[in-house]
Amino acid sequence: MKLNKNAETTVLIVGLGLLGGSYARALKKKGYTVYAIEKKNSSVEYALREGIIDRGSTRVEESFLREADLTVFALYPHVFLDWIRENGALFPKGAILTDVTGVKKSVVGQIQQMLPEGVEYIAAHPMAGREVGGVENSDDKIFHGANFIVVPTEKNTHEGVETCKELGRELGFARISVLSPEKHDEMIAFLSQLTHCIAVSLMCAGDDRGLVDYTGDSFRDLTRIARIQEDLWSELFLLNKEALVEQMEKFEKTFSALSRAIREEDVDTMKEMMRLSTARRALFDRKGESK
Amino acid sequence: MKLNKNAETTVLIVGLGLLGGSYARALKKKGYTVYAIEKKNSSVEYALREGIIDRGSTRVEESFLREADLTVFALYPHVFLDWIRENGALFPKGAILTDVTGVKKSVVGQIQQMLPEGVEYIAAHPMAGREVGGVENSDDKIFHGANFIVVPTEKNTHEGVETCKELGRELGFARISVLSPEKHDEMIAFLSQLTHCIAVSLMCAGDDRGLVDYTGDSFRDLTRIARIQEDLWSELFLLNKEALVEQMEKFEKTFSALSRAIREEDVDTMKEMMRLSTARRALFDRKGESK
Repeated sequence: MKLNKNAETTVLIVGLGLLGGSYARALKKKGYTVYAIEKKNSSVEYALREGIIDRGSTRVEESFLREADLTVFALYPHVFLDWIRENGALFPKGAILTDVTGVKKSVVGQIQQMLPEGVEYIAAHPMAGREVGGVENSDDKIFHGANFIVVPTEKNTHEGVETCKELGRELGFARISVLSPEKHDEMIAFLSQLTHCIAVSLMCAGDDRGLVDYTGDSFRDLTRIARIQEDLWSELFLLNKEALVEQMEKFEKTFSALSRAIREEDVDTMKEMMRLSTARRALFDRKGESK
Repeated sequence: MKLNKNAETTVLIVGLGLLGGSYARALKKKGYTVYAIEKKNSSVEYALREGIIDRGSTRVEESFLREADLTVFALYPHVFLDWIRENGALFPKGAILTDVTGVKKSVVGQIQQMLPEGVEYIAAHPMAGREVGGVENSDDKIFHGANFIVVPTEKNTHEGVETCKELGRELGFARISVLSPEKHDEMIAFLSQLTHCIAVSLMCAGDDRGLVDYTGDSFRDLTRIARIQEDLWSELFLLNKEALVEQMEKFEKTFSALSRAIREEDVDTMKEMMRLSTARRALFDRKGESK
């Protein structure tokens, strides 16, 4: 399927939260027809009023499923699984489905197994977000400069993967990559989940409210993501438990090594770690600047 | 002493690196006469050429010490201590000295003891910096919105403390506070040193260069300060070893608790920590926004 930037191509979004709403905004601007299914009536009404969807429903409107050229699921993982279990059979042959779920191994295989023959689900992870949720906070600018990862399995077709890549480009992502579910989950355990665990622990470790007055940028930067939606993130952590625990253990070991070096005044080890971290971080900077 | 914003008030800066250079820039703009002592000739020449100092010397020029109404030391801690040991006796009675050193308990008492009767050293910590050093990267904008902490002991006079506060205001800091050396070092161990230890450990824990392509903002934010000057920071860590090790142990304990909760799928504990971190971080946000 080729996405055509015109009103005759219809994208259905299931779940109008921050990400679903931001998809809707971006796609409407590009000229697509956008439908939405969202159980919260106020979110549907808001999106219609704002003109970021053409039609919306709080029920699973079968005509939406039939008319959609592409359906995007922007739901919590367990809600997504339940939804497909109940309604997956309603999709017509040839339908293409994708999602925004932040973990893949534990989700993708299950969803693909539940769908009827001829319905293709191609997983994706838009690496973008905000500290605040809800369609009212949606903003398609969060995609600019960000990474979009397509996560196919052996069940996916070349066409499905290409359609999903094109979606990423249409949404305005800076970089589109392809990863296997296993590689994706390993990467996300280190880059995203571990960093959230660190930020949460750092905020929980110190209880001096007086410190607020002395905070510098480094502390603010490290704890920005300590504002976290506990229902979503506890679910994501457990769905990727094995990879996350492995990354946490690696970090704990490295942190302990630095702590030991400081206690033992082992200046060589301290400096060696600092030189390594400086060199590695410089690499990230260059890539970041060139984007 | 009252700082008068005119060419008749002379500030001497010892050490023209990033911070010394930024002090010079800010004070020149305000109309002060600025002298500098800096052992690197190229830094002195750069500063003279840029017009951010009026006179400069690579030697300890006694006339500078006699003419200065205020002298600011912007040196590595051990260099600062050596400098005062060798040259402290050259300051005339009534001289006021201050500094930019990032740790206090292990430095302030020693310096005060070495100085002749009638010479007052009032410690300060400007909580500002950049990832790059050197007078060529100096920039007085780094002080805007930042915290300036005055760190007196019982040996300081009311006048000395007030002069130092005024210096912070003149430099453009947003908030001037006063802390004891002990409180300062505890605070800095948690807010600054621990966060640098975390960033360094995080960069050292993972070796996948391929990850650069998938990095989101959270990882970039957490590791910005992993670019670190190893000579300076290893010195600062060891000079504040006791307080830093205590903070590192507190963080390790909290991180382990979260790790255990994830391994044991103890969702209640996970969510409780996330709610706590979210509430605490929100407090920092509000304060940050109102500044």
